[in-house]
Amino acid sequence: MTIVDGALEWREHPDPVAGDHDLLVAVRAAGLNGGDLMQRRGLYPAPPGEPPDIPGLELAGEVVAVGPSVRDFAVGDRVMAVVGGGGQAELARVPERHALAVPDDVAWAEAGGFPEVFTTAHDALFTQCGLTVGDRLCVHGAAGGVGVAAVQLGVLAGAQVTATVRDPDRRADVAALGDGVTVADPADVAAHGPFDVILELVGAPNLPTDLATLAIDGRIAVIGIGAGAKAEVHLGALMATRGVIRGSTLRPRSFEEKAAAARALARHALPALAAGRLRVPVTATFPLAEATAAYDRFAAGGKFGKIVLTG
Amino acid sequence: MTIVDGALEWREHPDPVAGDHDLLVAVRAAGLNGGDLMQRRGLYPAPPGEPPDIPGLELAGEVVAVGPSVRDFAVGDRVMAVVGGGGQAELARVPERHALAVPDDVAWAEAGGFPEVFTTAHDALFTQCGLTVGDRLCVHGAAGGVGVAAVQLGVLAGAQVTATVRDPDRRADVAALGDGVTVADPADVAAHGPFDVILELVGAPNLPTDLATLAIDGRIAVIGIGAGAKAEVHLGALMATRGVIRGSTLRPRSFEEKAAAARALARHALPALAAGRLRVPVTATFPLAEATAAYDRFAAGGKFGKIVLTG
Repeated sequence: MTIVDGALEWREHPDPVAGDHDLLVAVRAAGLNGGDLMQRRGLYPAPPGEPPDIPGLELAGEVVAVGPSVRDFAVGDRVMAVVGGGGQAELARVPERHALAVPDDVAWAEAGGFPEVFTTAHDALFTQCGLTVGDRLCVHGAAGGVGVAAVQLGVLAGAQVTATVRDPDRRADVAALGDGVTVADPADVAAHGPFDVILELVGAPNLPTDLATLAIDGRIAVIGIGAGAKAEVHLGALMATRGVIRGSTLRPRSFEEKAAAARALARHALPALAAGRLRVPVTATFPLAEATAAYDRFAAGGKFGKIVLTG
Repeated sequence: MTIVDGALEWREHPDPVAGDHDLLVAVRAAGLNGGDLMQRRGLYPAPPGEPPDIPGLELAGEVVAVGPSVRDFAVGDRVMAVVGGGGQAELARVPERHALAVPDDVAWAEAGGFPEVFTTAHDALFTQCGLTVGDRLCVHGAAGGVGVAAVQLGVLAGAQVTATVRDPDRRADVAALGDGVTVADPADVAAHGPFDVILELVGAPNLPTDLATLAIDGRIAVIGIGAGAKAEVHLGALMATRGVIRGSTLRPRSFEEKAAAARALARHALPALAAGRLRVPVTATFPLAEATAAYDRFAAGGKFGKIVLTG
């Protein structure tokens, strides 16, 4: 898939080359993410060293070649990974340390939609916010890809999970993600607080409520700002709770940080994925060559979980 | 010292009683802090269990009695401590685990002005923001009590310290706090960034600049909001730096958290205080009975370091 002046065209590119520590992967599925839509609009350029014009931040597929220093994967293995770009293609280069083994019972479409949102949610909840058993977690924007991952990871970790969902039609889906999940209208969330950890996937308009519902020593992770970026923050409220506001994105991180995030996710989440305790709801799949329709579906909103391109 | 309808009066109170693990201390010096002025105005009530009407968040003095379970201090010892209130008095109760030994060569006035600002700065810089050797530190509002402590602790820890001071008359004093300290006009600070750690002692108006000068993985600690509490925070900028904004206050913390902060300060800073590598600049001292004049001097601003009441 190639971005040409904001349009998506299916064009031939030279095959990527696997370096010493890389896998070459025949892509079977590649999830769509908000970053792809931003990149298409020219707002989220690929980092240096990544294909500048081929979108795709995650993929799943079969290993078709390995570099000479690769130790943990072999030709024929099913893998999935977050990539810096170029995932929405027939072939992609994946550094071995960024690759995750796809469990046997996980279908390609689910695997293609797993890495980006589960890495983002896992990193924000556990690595950044130290979510632990018994913590009161609030996920704002829980029906989207990262939200669906975060709600499930929170349940898995023994947190008390409240999820806000704007669209009433999506609330039953979110409630079904795990035992004990409380689904709330965003306007009513204060009745369910305070929260030790708040995952903010909506943006600036939520920050005043986030601060008002933060527990002592609470942590807010801002991962999505689709509804706005300029937030009003009452610093006195932040001081009174000894609170923390963190912002984060995955894509610009260093190779080693991405490897560390992938290894942490492999250790903490792949056993649960293999056991069926984590799942990737897929709203719709589209063939890679019909990416424009997939992007339009994503932009239309109201989806639950992931939209995935299949190869 | 007693707060009576916003005025300060020297009144007799019953002597405090030392519990099993407490020291009874004859106060020789008690530093003033912004919190005292807020408490006098009714804006910063004492926490439960502390004298509601006797101000004073820190003190130094001689131990005159000890509870039966006290192990580390004895009658006659010189001690200093952060207290939840009641420091500006002839006698004060200090939990043993909150007390710090006053080094031999440190005068009472300096000791009385040491605990609150050095605990606040040490906790913010090291415990909360993980300041370490080589980090680029910016202290906004560096001529005040916490600022003077933070600049010195930053130099001691091998950080590269930039200090902003609004009043040009105070800049030479701040520059003399340590080798290599860069003193900047607040309006010019961007020329000295980016910073790994920003200690914000001024408040909301600085936040946009704080975010614009934050390094990747940078940490902002908001400890003072005298210039305003409602900040505009660009969440996109926070995400791009994977930045952190923390708010904090010492006073409402639990007994154990205050003990941990005191023990950390004793371990990390008392040797340097004893060696003369940390100092407490005292602008003026006033007898306890003349507290009103001391509070007026504090409120007038433009001081460098501490104002201390002496007993």
